Amino acid sequence: MTREEIRTMSVSELEELAGKIRERILDVVSRNGGHLSSTLGATDLIVAMHYVFDASKDPFIFDVSHQAYAHKLLTGRWDAFDTLRKFDGISGYTKPSESPYDYYIAGHSSTSVSLAVGAAKAIRLRGEEGERIPVVMIGDGAMSAGMVYEALNELGDRKYPAIIVLNDNEMSIAKPIGAISRILSQAMASPFYQRFKEKTEQMLEHFPESARYMAKRMEEGMRMITPGILFEEMGLEYIGPVDGHNIEQLIETFQMARELQKPVIVHAQTTKGKGYKIAEGYYEHWHGVGPFDKESGRSLKKGGAPSATKIFSDKLYELASKDEKIVGVTAAMPSGTGMKQLMEKFPDRFWDVGIAEQHAVTSMGPLAKEGYKPFVAIYSTFLQRGYDQVIHDIALMNLPVAFAIDRAGIVGEDGETHQGAFDISYLRTVPNMTLFAPRDDATLEEAVEFAAEFPTPCAFRYPRGAMALERGRYPATPFEKGRAEYLESDGEILLIGYGNGVGRAVRVADLLKERGVSAAVLDLRFVKPIDRETLEAAVTRYEKWFVFSDGVKMGGVAAAIAEALMPSSLRKTEIFSFEYDDRFIPHGRTDLVEASMGLSPDRLTERILEALQA
Amino acid sequence: MTREEIRTMSVSELEELAGKIRERILDVVSRNGGHLSSTLGATDLIVAMHYVFDASKDPFIFDVSHQAYAHKLLTGRWDAFDTLRKFDGISGYTKPSESPYDYYIAGHSSTSVSLAVGAAKAIRLRGEEGERIPVVMIGDGAMSAGMVYEALNELGDRKYPAIIVLNDNEMSIAKPIGAISRILSQAMASPFYQRFKEKTEQMLEHFPESARYMAKRMEEGMRMITPGILFEEMGLEYIGPVDGHNIEQLIETFQMARELQKPVIVHAQTTKGKGYKIAEGYYEHWHGVGPFDKESGRSLKKGGAPSATKIFSDKLYELASKDEKIVGVTAAMPSGTGMKQLMEKFPDRFWDVGIAEQHAVTSMGPLAKEGYKPFVAIYSTFLQRGYDQVIHDIALMNLPVAFAIDRAGIVGEDGETHQGAFDISYLRTVPNMTLFAPRDDATLEEAVEFAAEFPTPCAFRYPRGAMALERGRYPATPFEKGRAEYLESDGEILLIGYGNGVGRAVRVADLLKERGVSAAVLDLRFVKPIDRETLEAAVTRYEKWFVFSDGVKMGGVAAAIAEALMPSSLRKTEIFSFEYDDRFIPHGRTDLVEASMGLSPDRLTERILEALQA
Repeated sequence: MTREEIRTMSVSELEELAGKIRERILDVVSRNGGHLSSTLGATDLIVAMHYVFDASKDPFIFDVSHQAYAHKLLTGRWDAFDTLRKFDGISGYTKPSESPYDYYIAGHSSTSVSLAVGAAKAIRLRGEEGERIPVVMIGDGAMSAGMVYEALNELGDRKYPAIIVLNDNEMSIAKPIGAISRILSQAMASPFYQRFKEKTEQMLEHFPESARYMAKRMEEGMRMITPGILFEEMGLEYIGPVDGHNIEQLIETFQMARELQKPVIVHAQTTKGKGYKIAEGYYEHWHGVGPFDKESGRSLKKGGAPSATKIFSDKLYELASKDEKIVGVTAAMPSGTGMKQLMEKFPDRFWDVGIAEQHAVTSMGPLAKEGYKPFVAIYSTFLQRGYDQVIHDIALMNLPVAFAIDRAGIVGEDGETHQGAFDISYLRTVPNMTLFAPRDDATLEEAVEFAAEFPTPCAFRYPRGAMALERGRYPATPFEKGRAEYLESDGEILLIGYGNGVGRAVRVADLLKERGVSAAVLDLRFVKPIDRETLEAAVTRYEKWFVFSDGVKMGGVAAAIAEALMPSSLRKTEIFSFEYDDRFIPHGRTDLVEASMGLSPDRLTERILEALQA
Repeated sequence: MTREEIRTMSVSELEELAGKIRERILDVVSRNGGHLSSTLGATDLIVAMHYVFDASKDPFIFDVSHQAYAHKLLTGRWDAFDTLRKFDGISGYTKPSESPYDYYIAGHSSTSVSLAVGAAKAIRLRGEEGERIPVVMIGDGAMSAGMVYEALNELGDRKYPAIIVLNDNEMSIAKPIGAISRILSQAMASPFYQRFKEKTEQMLEHFPESARYMAKRMEEGMRMITPGILFEEMGLEYIGPVDGHNIEQLIETFQMARELQKPVIVHAQTTKGKGYKIAEGYYEHWHGVGPFDKESGRSLKKGGAPSATKIFSDKLYELASKDEKIVGVTAAMPSGTGMKQLMEKFPDRFWDVGIAEQHAVTSMGPLAKEGYKPFVAIYSTFLQRGYDQVIHDIALMNLPVAFAIDRAGIVGEDGETHQGAFDISYLRTVPNMTLFAPRDDATLEEAVEFAAEFPTPCAFRYPRGAMALERGRYPATPFEKGRAEYLESDGEILLIGYGNGVGRAVRVADLLKERGVSAAVLDLRFVKPIDRETLEAAVTRYEKWFVFSDGVKMGGVAAAIAEALMPSSLRKTEIFSFEYDDRFIPHGRTDLVEASMGLSPDRLTERILEALQA
């Protein structure tokens, strides 16, 4: 069906359509993996949005946008949806280059209200108010990030017309935490009233019986107007709560909201996983899933090497069991970062602060100052949100906070908004920061041990999934600050690996050997401070250096090596960077994405052979 | 006097002390410059804090900390205060290396509540609750940043004991904007009551006369309990508003707040500039000042070359007058960034969103998408707060947002929290981003013109104060994407300047000439995309290259040049970086700070001559 057809449908036809959409989502996600429960939960809302609003002119802005599958299916991507999250296929997020109905990109949380403010400003400047209106869908979990508050602040102040559909399923990705989550998930529905009632009752004790009766009546009247009073205090209109699965009611509500021509919060209550019984409710497991069997709900993932996340988590668990000075924080990713088992075992020392990377980083500073050893476990891409805090609140104080950077490098199906491509470059410029990386599982364990004892700020990175280099190929050695380590110490050329790049370097060295070229392999281990001594010594032995790392070239590992050799030694080497080119990197299976960038071991081997012939 | 003495003083003695502190502050700031009105306004609060709390054990956390001069004077720095903001002197901000009574560094706004949460966690883990309590002082302007909300969220949820003194002077640095500011400055004092009253009255129309009377009485009762209800909804206790200049009342309030052993907001109302009649009230001018005459209030600043900010502002004003597609935003720095005159002339197209860099950046994306040309005018150091937004919301969408990066390089007296040292490095790694910089006033005007027409994301940087290179020394030429320009095209060696570094390169070339060495001078103009063609051509002409730029070495301009020459051309050159070493850079007059880093033209000349002899 097309968008135009939707707008002529009856409610029962729309309900039927929502059912078909859910079926299609379930079918494709069970095969391709993807975000399931949020997207099933948002389907009725999206159908109603498309009935009332017009995505060809009204900016549809989906926060995080992993819940927007129904929107994709309703805007010309029904068949193409088979390729969801596959390389060259449909993205798991909204993406303007994929469809004109996707107004904006979003993969990081809590940008939507700012985007709506910007869109509303443009609409006003263009004189199109009344004809176009931004429509935001945002989940309650995304409300914990400060950015939303900055944007609501301006929206409420300037009163631009905009519809904010608050998709309230009473959970963020993990356990809802925080005062605001509580206000949203509980207080709005009634507790303001509860507090009001309590305070009123205290006062009423001093009043005579008749007044108590009247006041009680008044209080009951208040009940109807109070749920949204917090938003109303911010200058926003509030409608709700409404049933987010009642399409008829949603249509009426959206129409009413549009008529107001003001900033309006529509508070809709939904059920995660709606329509797929196995996933309905608060199961973190069903937020993002790999392929699974639709009938049983069982995962189809084959067992394999343990993920780097699990190695990190188990090691930190072991250390934290012995050392009560170890504390830690995650920003709404307890499972994704492996902090969950630590929070469960040590609830006083490990915290989930919700989607609040800025606060997560800064709040660990005083703990370090007071003698604790904080681990900040965060994805490379999300640490960008806490960049100023890393500089201003941790590095400038030179405090021993350890950043455990998960999802470094290509993250696969999540794609361009989530690639962990920049952390080496943006952290390397920060004074007082030490940066290192493990090459395999065993050295990841060493990295955690090293970080736990390290006296100043440090960060270590590891990839999504399993490390490329198999455990046991080289013995694990402890990290020594600023010291690189030769894994293969003889050869015609020098391959330098950093982190997961070491695995690729070793694989390429194997392939080169088959082609008759011997390569020394240096595990750089520290990109900051860099092992200048070992590099200077290598200058006299090797002329051609090839650098392997899962990060961008610009300001990356090869650049760090070049900087270290400046000025004179630089003249004696030829440095080839096998890092990421300067462009945003699309989604898909990691090996396919890497191959598309010329970074498959086969292609890298060819590139080296070409370089040797030049 | 010492801290210990304070605690034995009577209220009238404390008032006298506060008077002396104000006198001392006024005296030193009138000579050295500094933050005046906020620090005068906070003096009584700080005296009362020191009376009730013990800075030797209670973490005193000052948000932004430019208001903490009284705290410095009360903790052993009365005499040293003469050196305020001077090189090697007392910092304008709290700084643990300066005093054990300075718990934490702060120069960027809105980190204090996160720090208090961290400190409270440490206190609980150490079993010191009841003995120690974090005491925060935060201004109402700082409440607009999302980070505060992230932190209040966790604080209210977990109920750690902490005192948050909200220093409410009804203004942020500029005009207070936003719903939250309004709630703080007006609503808390009564408007919640106003809304309550209004809604109640609507209801009461349907009630009989006697009920109306009773309800009216109840409403009046409510008045006393409502001001802090918004904070109370977040799980925080609220006391206030109290008179922030009534030391006796403050002492009682702080004592009461401490007894609660909960998170408490103490809402204190103060007058900016209190005690110095000329500055009392809402004068943005008196927030941060240079030396002035105490009697008349007149600035002692001598006229000089116009600041880069003014050149930028005037040029943008000229363009915006002709092109209504030009829009812009500042985050609470309308004067500092020169956006003020644009906001005044074009209030519909230029916005101050308060201290909210994340929202400022992202909200400009849709305007660019809708055909407008947004200028985001922000200081280098504060753009760190919007880093993820630059990547995820602007660069990934490849939208024509122009970042006008003010205060790039050494900022002088504000010092280490404010140096504009990192922007080249952290922006250079961002795909789709174009980075350029003017060398003098005339090319800054060209830069604004170039940015206005540029079709994709771009950023240009300029220093605090006047450009180093005088206007007219070289003719202004328009920017051409990715094209460098020779200013002096013959010489034995090559000096490469970027931005304000060009002025230093030219000065050094002059000095070298006196010493018999001729130097070519290349204005790089674009660090991204870099002019590979010109650089490759230079490889054959010059062996020794010297790079001048106001930014860090790590990932900076010399690194960018090295990357561009990789792999083979790199072997033919010797690149010397005259950029900032890898450490945080202290405060003081810019020329003294630069000299301390070995970057004075004289010293650089010597360094080059040494390199030539090597």
